[in-house]
Amino acid sequence: MPFTERELIDWLTARAPRGPEVALGIGHDAAVVRAPSGDLLVLKSDQTIESVHFVRGEQPWGLVGRKALARVLSDVGAVGGRPVAALCSLALPADVALADVRALLDGLLEIATANGVSLVGGDLSRSERGVVIDIAGLGFLEGRGALRRDGARVGDAIVVTGPLGGSRAGHHLTFEPRWRAGVALAESGAVTSCIDLSDGLARDLHQITAASQVGAQIDAAAVPLRPLADGGVATIEQALHDGEDFELMFTVAPTELARLKAAPALRSLEVAAIGTVLPASEGVVMLRPDGTRVPLARGGYEHSLGI
Amino acid sequence: MPFTERELIDWLTARAPRGPEVALGIGHDAAVVRAPSGDLLVLKSDQTIESVHFVRGEQPWGLVGRKALARVLSDVGAVGGRPVAALCSLALPADVALADVRALLDGLLEIATANGVSLVGGDLSRSERGVVIDIAGLGFLEGRGALRRDGARVGDAIVVTGPLGGSRAGHHLTFEPRWRAGVALAESGAVTSCIDLSDGLARDLHQITAASQVGAQIDAAAVPLRPLADGGVATIEQALHDGEDFELMFTVAPTELARLKAAPALRSLEVAAIGTVLPASEGVVMLRPDGTRVPLARGGYEHSLGI
Repeated sequence: MPFTERELIDWLTARAPRGPEVALGIGHDAAVVRAPSGDLLVLKSDQTIESVHFVRGEQPWGLVGRKALARVLSDVGAVGGRPVAALCSLALPADVALADVRALLDGLLEIATANGVSLVGGDLSRSERGVVIDIAGLGFLEGRGALRRDGARVGDAIVVTGPLGGSRAGHHLTFEPRWRAGVALAESGAVTSCIDLSDGLARDLHQITAASQVGAQIDAAAVPLRPLADGGVATIEQALHDGEDFELMFTVAPTELARLKAAPALRSLEVAAIGTVLPASEGVVMLRPDGTRVPLARGGYEHSLGI
Repeated sequence: MPFTERELIDWLTARAPRGPEVALGIGHDAAVVRAPSGDLLVLKSDQTIESVHFVRGEQPWGLVGRKALARVLSDVGAVGGRPVAALCSLALPADVALADVRALLDGLLEIATANGVSLVGGDLSRSERGVVIDIAGLGFLEGRGALRRDGARVGDAIVVTGPLGGSRAGHHLTFEPRWRAGVALAESGAVTSCIDLSDGLARDLHQITAASQVGAQIDAAAVPLRPLADGGVATIEQALHDGEDFELMFTVAPTELARLKAAPALRSLEVAAIGTVLPASEGVVMLRPDGTRVPLARGGYEHSLGI
């Protein structure tokens, strides 16, 4: 796109009509809309596009379909929703084979079933070039308050639900969406902000700090790093900027953390406190193992931008 | 696509997981899901794709954006839902200008506002070639029973909410989605089946008759035909096969029709009874003005296929 995507979203956010049913609009991992009887509904759509999010022939079609839905389940969970139903819109070019489309859908249906998500509809159309998958997901908050990006408080611990970095080696296709953890975080009533790590720790942390009008310090030595197939682990640079980890990052008062970690949906995860929320005047910084503090730039790469 | 889309959807329908929350799944104009407190939610996504649904330079971007949302509002209304919120996923190639994207979104936001629909989120991404717009819509049934495709009964009148044919001259971009009529039809409790006319009267009638396991006779002389800019009117062939009329077609006992036509949302429309539901053994036929009956083939063209 020959223009700044962020500018377009800011422009859109200022103009988008927002009725009284909307509890959480543009600017969070997913939207929240109030149903007539008061139930809070979570809504999110996300695109998975050939040559942008996957490369034909490099990833099995089944894992591409799996990823397309898993990304949405991750977002629904990041606001505390239990995913319930999904719509699948598929634009298919002339050069894709039926067997490949079925493999894609098999992967999608398999992770839908595993997560109790019904596939209830969608749309099938031609595309000029490249496969475009767009999944819209519906979740229920079931009495929980929605997790937001804008509630982090000075002094909160910054916490992640698992190891980061090096996702391109395969994790970006096979990750388990952390919606059960998101549900537990929302149930606790203690979590002040939450985001799913799709664009890298650095960029997603800046989303939280900007929305919450705070600063933050990340302790590099405390960031859990993903083990890699070659026996090594991801680097801190990869954790900061690779993206597509799809762990949750949240903020919570340090006194609440032990209780949270003991929740059934969290105790099997590698939950780690990696930093502290600071006043906005302190900026967003990283404490390096040598004791120096360096500014932490947004950096990273936006595969796609949530609206 | 080098395969039969319909076969793919049948394959998908048989495999799609469907939980207890799902009141209406794949195979209707939109899905219906029950929220925890019992509210019925309507869900639908629909793609509008460059070089498939519109041609760059031939249609103003604002009307393309308008159409992308209007199609979804039409589908939500066809099951009796009041549209409430929408997500907009946009895949943009490198050769599209910011001003054009803004014009597209302006058209979309304008019709959203006019229909009381909140834009609550979505996704923005690159595409390899061509603009792909996918809109997911949420609607509420508010105590009404969902309109379905599978309830038409022998003896019912077949009714449309306005003139058909010749939509390509402009109507396909400027139509008013008939969700208020759909809401009134659902409120009546009398309507036995409903569909929005997107693929042409012939093809959409076959959707109703196949789902309801009935036959039908259309009276060609009774079909209202759209006035055209040149002073003429569309032909019956255009009404049968052009598609993109986005009027509702529904079935109802003939004794209920006068009451329905008097409903505030319907009395300003050109509501017309155009035929009768027959036993399946009679097939789907058209009564021509000369008194002969001919089989009515599905025909038409599927721009895209609802899943």
